[in-house]
Amino acid sequence: MQEVESIKEFGGFLKRYTHQSAVNNCEMVFSVYMPPQAEKSKVPSLYWLSGLTCTDDNVRTKAGMQRIAAKLGMAIIMPDTSPRGDNVVDYPNRYDLGKGAGFYVDATESPFYKHYNMYSYIVHELPSIIEDNFAVIKGVKSISGHSMGGHGALICALKNKGAYKSVSAFSPICNPTKCDWGRTCLATYLGADEKQWLQYDATALIENGASVNEILIDQGTADEFLEKQLYPQNLADVCAKKEVTLNLRMQEGYDHSYHFISSFIEEHLLYHSRYLES
Amino acid sequence: MQEVESIKEFGGFLKRYTHQSAVNNCEMVFSVYMPPQAEKSKVPSLYWLSGLTCTDDNVRTKAGMQRIAAKLGMAIIMPDTSPRGDNVVDYPNRYDLGKGAGFYVDATESPFYKHYNMYSYIVHELPSIIEDNFAVIKGVKSISGHSMGGHGALICALKNKGAYKSVSAFSPICNPTKCDWGRTCLATYLGADEKQWLQYDATALIENGASVNEILIDQGTADEFLEKQLYPQNLADVCAKKEVTLNLRMQEGYDHSYHFISSFIEEHLLYHSRYLES
Repeated sequence: MQEVESIKEFGGFLKRYTHQSAVNNCEMVFSVYMPPQAEKSKVPSLYWLSGLTCTDDNVRTKAGMQRIAAKLGMAIIMPDTSPRGDNVVDYPNRYDLGKGAGFYVDATESPFYKHYNMYSYIVHELPSIIEDNFAVIKGVKSISGHSMGGHGALICALKNKGAYKSVSAFSPICNPTKCDWGRTCLATYLGADEKQWLQYDATALIENGASVNEILIDQGTADEFLEKQLYPQNLADVCAKKEVTLNLRMQEGYDHSYHFISSFIEEHLLYHSRYLES
Repeated sequence: MQEVESIKEFGGFLKRYTHQSAVNNCEMVFSVYMPPQAEKSKVPSLYWLSGLTCTDDNVRTKAGMQRIAAKLGMAIIMPDTSPRGDNVVDYPNRYDLGKGAGFYVDATESPFYKHYNMYSYIVHELPSIIEDNFAVIKGVKSISGHSMGGHGALICALKNKGAYKSVSAFSPICNPTKCDWGRTCLATYLGADEKQWLQYDATALIENGASVNEILIDQGTADEFLEKQLYPQNLADVCAKKEVTLNLRMQEGYDHSYHFISSFIEEHLLYHSRYLES
């Protein structure tokens, strides 16, 4: 692991690292914000999973999370959204497949299974690296994300009950087996058998018995992807049916951008903080 | 004037416009954040001048100003940093000259005087457009900026005593006639006679009698441009000599980036708000 950048912000440090990923079989990049409190004692962590086309840079530049993390004493872990590098298969003309679109699954199809293993990277490899190298409290972590990363946050929490103290999402892809973004990635990385896709679909996971203590979701009503890609109502329906606590907040007039995220990110960090501190 | 974008953020709206500029003789772009309070009554304005290479986009994406503006009920006006378009002379291989580097002067040299008139644009043309088209209180405005834009904020306030209720800057070019960034732009836009440059140099303006009620400056000690381009000590010396109130805060370990700005922007907006509300 190599530190490639360190920037003071809100009294703490925003740092960027490169490292060789065993599960993705390539060099990966991630950013970490360590709040000032971490200089004296270990702090809890929030993992933020970003959306299609993003790297670790979007959230650290645009979301305004560092201010709140510095106040609450919370580390923010900001991974990339896919494997990277010349050896990794890509679709340069597609924003919704290949690099920048790892979809937080472990691929089974050739040649993707060699590199596209973002699920194991997020759930196992990265937390192990973070807990070994930073002043974070082991096992005290929560997860959130945006769009494809909101999907990622939901499935990581649902598939690993207890591993995350809390989960939230902005504009998540709630039912990826039913929308183009999801079907394209799932078919490519997992193959044609749609049954295999269900293990990476939050709505299907809950239908099949998965649960968490609570889910907080903010969704803009003016989101250009709401109707055809996100399906929060499907998640709401299955949560009601299975008695999973969902706080789905439809935010009037907000779009899919980081301007929307920045408007409500403080409430998400306060929500996670309550679970992380308890 | 044409609205080309409108994004809801913190209950207000971040909007982008294009318009034909009479003084720059080209189409210009600017962004405005109107806080929720502006739907009911007129609000004061803060003009933010950006630095070399920037457009209106950097500050609206990275600074975290909209959150505070929404709380305080303040409009934020975010102009571009130079004239734009195919007819405008540029130096495509230079980040510090031509497009993105208008330096907030009115050019006198050919061919620049046709388009490079950012001083008049910021001080006269843009405020007139803003006051005619938005729910802002006429004449109740303050100004701030970063780096080249910090220089711009200082000279606009110093050359127009009373026109701005308050002025502040992050990492400003305090004495441009003495540094490479300044000398390059001033020689190109104003010609070889260095006496002409002094009217656009904050340190020289104060030496020659200009003043304002107070100046707030934040400057990172780890700023990679501090030693060779910014010269805050020269400004501090002349302010002491001329009894101009300067609050120059050297912020330990901070760099020249928007991560630094975001860390202290709330204090700047609170400072401006006190003047704007009084």
